[in-house]
Amino acid sequence: MQHIPALQTLLDELERLPGIGPKSASRIAYWMLNTEKPTVVRLADAIHEVKDTVHFCKRCFNYAQDELCEFCASSDRDTSIICVVSVPRDIAVIEKSGAFNGLYHVLGGELSPLDGVGPDQLHISELMARLGSSQVREVLLATNPTVEGETTASYLARMIQPLGIRVTRLASGLPVGGDLEFADEVTLGRAIENRRELL
Amino acid sequence: MQHIPALQTLLDELERLPGIGPKSASRIAYWMLNTEKPTVVRLADAIHEVKDTVHFCKRCFNYAQDELCEFCASSDRDTSIICVVSVPRDIAVIEKSGAFNGLYHVLGGELSPLDGVGPDQLHISELMARLGSSQVREVLLATNPTVEGETTASYLARMIQPLGIRVTRLASGLPVGGDLEFADEVTLGRAIENRRELL
Repeated sequence: MQHIPALQTLLDELERLPGIGPKSASRIAYWMLNTEKPTVVRLADAIHEVKDTVHFCKRCFNYAQDELCEFCASSDRDTSIICVVSVPRDIAVIEKSGAFNGLYHVLGGELSPLDGVGPDQLHISELMARLGSSQVREVLLATNPTVEGETTASYLARMIQPLGIRVTRLASGLPVGGDLEFADEVTLGRAIENRRELL
Repeated sequence: MQHIPALQTLLDELERLPGIGPKSASRIAYWMLNTEKPTVVRLADAIHEVKDTVHFCKRCFNYAQDELCEFCASSDRDTSIICVVSVPRDIAVIEKSGAFNGLYHVLGGELSPLDGVGPDQLHISELMARLGSSQVREVLLATNPTVEGETTASYLARMIQPLGIRVTRLASGLPVGGDLEFADEVTLGRAIENRRELL
């Protein structure tokens, strides 16, 4: 690499991004050098704008630019069901499915004692407060189908059940369009366990 | 995707980068949201810094932060040989090989009449001026081994030869460590044409 200090700094910062290695960083950096300033600086401005204006929704801890996120602020959502996710990004995935029209609650992670993440590090007390003060009839636990996600879901289920609220979990099974041959044994086992009646 | 205008703008700007698709952009954007501000803003600052301070070396048209690039300014380089490349990025690749210790000249592209790139759009007159006023004994043409690169090299060779300066070209042949089986026929043909004596 050439010894141009500003270019080296840019490369270092680009390599810090997730999924960007030295080759991608170099490709992007030279593209930036080679592209007219206004186009390139728009990215820098967008970074500042996001860090200055986006914060957590004070109710559900999703990202928001206003006090409440778009879902908490909307009057078109079903307020009787709350979907609990680990991180805000999962909301985008669920919204894309088009299968859910309720509200959300972001935990900010999943229980992981080894990493020092206990119930107090997650937005669980805020979830319980929401459940206590509103007419929620169902909580859909949409944490990841991993050890941490399942642990978190079990923990929450035990907390919520005494309130008389229905607690559900995303189904596990074969990915639609997937091939049986390539399914791992745990997923296939879960798919057999959770088999359902046809007709 | 969620309707957070600042996030959407950031995603749009990230997707403009080479090699970054919607998935990578989303991953990077959420990483930025999730990372503390000083770390993230360093990238924005690095972008500004590069666009504000990096310009072309006034002698060879490499990128530089001072008036001359590190090679033109150095006293450790062999000033009797100039390596001609298409774009500044190629210099980094040649330097990495460790096989060249001369000076450089960046053309700023390659001849491509269909794209409207003729000799006047490249830094060819500046190259000829350098050759006329210095003790250069060899010009190594390191344009790409493509139609445009070869055309540019032939054109330059015809221009430089009358000056009595040795004109050389990067060798074409099999990539070291490559497998004969996977060599394309043009490369293999060139490797046979340019075969050399062993001992």
